[in-house]
Amino acid sequence: MKIFVINPNSTTSMTDKIAASARAVTAPGVVIEARSGIGAPASIEGHYDEAMAVPRLLDQVREAEAQKADAIVVACFDDPGIGACREIATGPVIGICEAAVKAASMVATSFSVVTTLPRSVPIIEEMVRRYGLDHQCRRVRSAAIPVLALEEPGSNARLLVRAEILRAIEEDRCEAVVLGCAGMADLAAWLTEETGIPVIDGVTVATKFAEALVGAGIKTSKIGAYAPPNPK
Amino acid sequence: MKIFVINPNSTTSMTDKIAASARAVTAPGVVIEARSGIGAPASIEGHYDEAMAVPRLLDQVREAEAQKADAIVVACFDDPGIGACREIATGPVIGICEAAVKAASMVATSFSVVTTLPRSVPIIEEMVRRYGLDHQCRRVRSAAIPVLALEEPGSNARLLVRAEILRAIEEDRCEAVVLGCAGMADLAAWLTEETGIPVIDGVTVATKFAEALVGAGIKTSKIGAYAPPNPK
Amino acid sequence: MKIFVINPNSTTSMTDKIAASARAVTAPGVVIEARSGIGAPASIEGHYDEAMAVPRLLDQVREAEAQKADAIVVACFDDPGIGACREIATGPVIGICEAAVKAASMVATSFSVVTTLPRSVPIIEEMVRRYGLDHQCRRVRSAAIPVLALEEPGSNARLLVRAEILRAIEEDRCEAVVLGCAGMADLAAWLTEETGIPVIDGVTVATKFAEALVGAGIKTSKIGAYAPPNPK
Amino acid sequence: MKIFVINPNSTTSMTDKIAASARAVTAPGVVIEARSGIGAPASIEGHYDEAMAVPRLLDQVREAEAQKADAIVVACFDDPGIGACREIATGPVIGICEAAVKAASMVATSFSVVTTLPRSVPIIEEMVRRYGLDHQCRRVRSAAIPVLALEEPGSNARLLVRAEILRAIEEDRCEAVVLGCAGMADLAAWLTEETGIPVIDGVTVATKFAEALVGAGIKTSKIGAYAPPNPK
Amino acid sequence: MKIFVINPNSTTSMTDKIAASARAVTAPGVVIEARSGIGAPASIEGHYDEAMAVPRLLDQVREAEAQKADAIVVACFDDPGIGACREIATGPVIGICEAAVKAASMVATSFSVVTTLPRSVPIIEEMVRRYGLDHQCRRVRSAAIPVLALEEPGSNARLLVRAEILRAIEEDRCEAVVLGCAGMADLAAWLTEETGIPVIDGVTVATKFAEALVGAGIKTSKIGAYAPPNPK
Amino acid sequence: MKIFVINPNSTTSMTDKIAASARAVTAPGVVIEARSGIGAPASIEGHYDEAMAVPRLLDQVREAEAQKADAIVVACFDDPGIGACREIATGPVIGICEAAVKAASMVATSFSVVTTLPRSVPIIEEMVRRYGLDHQCRRVRSAAIPVLALEEPGSNARLLVRAEILRAIEEDRCEAVVLGCAGMADLAAWLTEETGIPVIDGVTVATKFAEALVGAGIKTSKIGAYAPPNPK
Repeated sequence: MKIFVINPNSTTSMTDKIAASARAVTAPGVVIEARSGIGAPASIEGHYDEAMAVPRLLDQVREAEAQKADAIVVACFDDPGIGACREIATGPVIGICEAAVKAASMVATSFSVVTTLPRSVPIIEEMVRRYGLDHQCRRVRSAAIPVLALEEPGSNARLLVRAEILRAIEEDRCEAVVLGCAGMADLAAWLTEETGIPVIDGVTVATKFAEALVGAGIKTSKIGAYAPPNPK
Repeated sequence: MKIFVINPNSTTSMTDKIAASARAVTAPGVVIEARSGIGAPASIEGHYDEAMAVPRLLDQVREAEAQKADAIVVACFDDPGIGACREIATGPVIGICEAAVKAASMVATSFSVVTTLPRSVPIIEEMVRRYGLDHQCRRVRSAAIPVLALEEPGSNARLLVRAEILRAIEEDRCEAVVLGCAGMADLAAWLTEETGIPVIDGVTVATKFAEALVGAGIKTSKIGAYAPPNPK
Repeated sequence: MKIFVINPNSTTSMTDKIAASARAVTAPGVVIEARSGIGAPASIEGHYDEAMAVPRLLDQVREAEAQKADAIVVACFDDPGIGACREIATGPVIGICEAAVKAASMVATSFSVVTTLPRSVPIIEEMVRRYGLDHQCRRVRSAAIPVLALEEPGSNARLLVRAEILRAIEEDRCEAVVLGCAGMADLAAWLTEETGIPVIDGVTVATKFAEALVGAGIKTSKIGAYAPPNPK
Repeated sequence: MKIFVINPNSTTSMTDKIAASARAVTAPGVVIEARSGIGAPASIEGHYDEAMAVPRLLDQVREAEAQKADAIVVACFDDPGIGACREIATGPVIGICEAAVKAASMVATSFSVVTTLPRSVPIIEEMVRRYGLDHQCRRVRSAAIPVLALEEPGSNARLLVRAEILRAIEEDRCEAVVLGCAGMADLAAWLTEETGIPVIDGVTVATKFAEALVGAGIKTSKIGAYAPPNPK
Repeated sequence: MKIFVINPNSTTSMTDKIAASARAVTAPGVVIEARSGIGAPASIEGHYDEAMAVPRLLDQVREAEAQKADAIVVACFDDPGIGACREIATGPVIGICEAAVKAASMVATSFSVVTTLPRSVPIIEEMVRRYGLDHQCRRVRSAAIPVLALEEPGSNARLLVRAEILRAIEEDRCEAVVLGCAGMADLAAWLTEETGIPVIDGVTVATKFAEALVGAGIKTSKIGAYAPPNPK
Repeated sequence: MKIFVINPNSTTSMTDKIAASARAVTAPGVVIEARSGIGAPASIEGHYDEAMAVPRLLDQVREAEAQKADAIVVACFDDPGIGACREIATGPVIGICEAAVKAASMVATSFSVVTTLPRSVPIIEEMVRRYGLDHQCRRVRSAAIPVLALEEPGSNARLLVRAEILRAIEEDRCEAVVLGCAGMADLAAWLTEETGIPVIDGVTVATKFAEALVGAGIKTSKIGAYAPPNPK
């Protein structure tokens, strides 16, 4: 089984981290192909970055299809271009936000999300509502760190994330926390340990859910909105 | 006042029709600048087309800003890239779906939408829910016509749209109908006449709403999700 | 075009202020006819006042119809009697709450409302939910001032409103604020200036939306709930 | 215990029927005082009739308070003026729609409503949503009969209602039916018998719920929206 | 009329208190039969306790049916096994949470719930949402007391409950409070007195609502989900 | 990794089928332990059967914990006792309804459910709403077959299910179908083949999702509603 994990931004150190997180959890026989959004913004912080990244993401999806991808993970917490990806993919396409919040809803009655920048909060709130989990989401919080701070070796980003999770437990009375950025993929195990609650990373979960859907023989529906694009 | 009406697809005959519809309703002193999505797909029929069209749309928005646009209308019923446009615009950015359904909700207790292709139905349903009007939307219907059929002089597209509206009145018990494609902009008056109910075209309404917000001194908020993109 | 702006209460100084606000924004050729609720309560602070004001409002609507009104604005933030007005009007009838929150939702991902008295808060919350925008409304707040304090020249009402807006920005993380009383119509520009976010007044927006709907050729649907009252 | 059952319209034959229905179910020691909306429309068929009836209804509520009412039932299925009544009443004020749909939700997983005229359907749909029971309400249906047809001895109104209930069972897969007009109060027992499902009349249930709340020592809250009207 | 009030837990002192509360409010001629969950957990604090208690509860319901129960009240605020009870009962089956929140929604525009332990909060939140009243429920709060502390004569439980209600009024801006445990049945009158708002106990209200539905001739629907269990 | 798949009913032929379906999809190294609800009803058709089955299910969960289960799948489409199971389990507990509808929502914009008996329809509708996917669920349908008909070798049950799926595609315009009974686990591949859309079986998906959550290091939260039961 071949799962393509596509980081829609162009920061390859983040892609490497994402790939490592995905590979760390795959079942025997599953191959992770990691790709970056070549030519896309270095980080996706808002609608504009997202819009500019999607065509590059679609290039990667088309190529993944050509290489017989069984499933595709879109490794950006805004779940950019998921509908478009599903139109051109055969197998499942999983966004990390969708995967993470749906996983959280299976192990906790409520969760909060901790993301990077305040400007991403309303975007995530809208996604959570679209996925139907606003009644289980206590709050979407920002740790007030730029996405790329997560890539800087000496930054205190991970401490800020931990602090925000502890605030979420205290103030939101949430039972789990979802990490709201692909760049936090390597922090989940440590944060789970530190905080005593499930801290859920979307990259890992989305990869496993992709594996799960492929394993269960489930593909993307092709009779409606996700049918291949109409020829022009 | 200068309102840019941007057709995100590249079909200039549609842009011309849209421009004419917008100009037909503007107040004295309002200038309509119409633009096409140069390099975008010829029509937007689904998520993929939408994703491919958005970067071209953003080019047009940036240029409109440079030309001191007071407001921007995005003239595609999928409201593509609205959030991204709002990040780079100063004045209001109005999508024609959002404008049309919000207008419909002010003159009728319920409405149905009649769009072109079945594949657009779920996309529109999701938007209507995002805009909070699913409880007033009876049904999103398709007249089963490709977008560009609306541009063909001899096609029976307008008759198919009329037939679908009549079915909506009968089967959905709706009090108004929203036309679910910018390419239907020239049909609203005729269809209102033919059917006896408000048949609402988003291009016209969005243009007038843009005019309204500018006139009322309302601009896009810049303290949150619609702040200018972060520099990379 | 003739738009009737009806203040459902009997305080004519408020009507004058409302009329001035409306006239300040209308397009060339639009005439504003302002009316008070003669015989209605001096202010509308709760369901009871609202109920007592509506028959007088309907008198004014009937007279507006006789005088060939193109549209009607009901200038009280409780949107009293809107359904009844729509039954006896031909053109659009716009409530200022509905207009303001729908405008806010087009320029911000979230908004709070600042109204006069605490007792109006649940009424406004219910309206916002009826209009389908509860997911974008962070909170309805009261500045704890009686409606008529807004009419007293030396009162500190405008300072209290400003303070409450600043609290809303800080505590609610909202991107815009809607003014929850027609008596605040003259404050929007100053408050927008002072706070740096869109502060939206319903009188102005409703007037412009009325102008917009008339300009777009949209009337109230007459085939359902808004049909003329049944003769008795 | 003294319960005032107020028919907001002026048709005294309907008031008599309502009073009889209420008296048929009260516990020992409960006195029903029935009142009509003197000067109100003869029937309430839409928002306009409702608005015109409410001030008369409030007159009756004030008088009921003067006569030491323990609770008040508003016997019109549009639940007109309930908020206003609650502001001037001490004990509970129950609308027959609210009572009936909440009762239905306790004995069935789903219900449909059968009302008189099509124009009332959207009004009832909005109320059901306001009461939070739209997810249990399959459909609001009209039997296409004017309200006063229910008062005509020889009319086939009751047969039309029965036919509509049978259609509701068949088409809506509902488990109960709520009668959507106070004028149907005398039909519930017969229709329950005929159809084999709970057919619920709001007058009866609201009266019993009023009795229940009084018996349980519950009064209307006076610290918020239902506080007495502010003096002018 | 014979109403069975079943305490699903096995603590008979709580059953006695519940029975006394029910008997204190019944109309003349209504007999309360109180039962405990013999063999069930001593208190119901979470899903597990609830699941273990339900079969004993169903034993009691079957026996109540054999003894010609007119209605059944399930006196645990988690409303355990209500659907199952309704399948084997003929008359209405009322849960005390459902009754209390629906009563609260009739006398206040908003309410908060004060329950015993934090672990019950998400369970109650989910129920309130199921009953469609999440938009009127400000918050579900815990007074941080075990259920059985309410049975200890010298405990300060009632003071903790009062303190939590006062916090709810202050922080939640709620207009009423619902007591979230059957063991608080004897506190409602005192707390209403102390706090000045309606403090609603589900045991009392559910008993009166049961009386009301029986009095109105309403039984549990038997054509759908509440039909008798299929024979095996 | 050891996943316990528990069939809450006592029909061992169904358990065998479920076990085979689960084993057919597991990754290398995953062991499926299948269990029946010894002493539970032979099939779960409604709330009552469900309530009677849960204590037996909890026995199995306790034993699974003793045997170091990594995760638990509850193989009944009513997701009985999930909350209670989660209180006594350490790893994830997945219900097949929750897993199936969440999987469907990742590969289709809409789905319908096809279950066995009409009486299960409202139960499933309520679950789908609880899981937040009512806006993506077109309709819950019944093929009008008893659960155990799926176990009879010569029955036409599979043909009835196929026919109902084809009706769902035609009438509901759904893009995928979820099989609403664990007893249909062996039909998904054949039905996907026959109908051309994703036909999703919960047993398979839940097993894979359990594997996924365990693989991603995610356990059930123990700080809130799913904490171990309080000692009595």
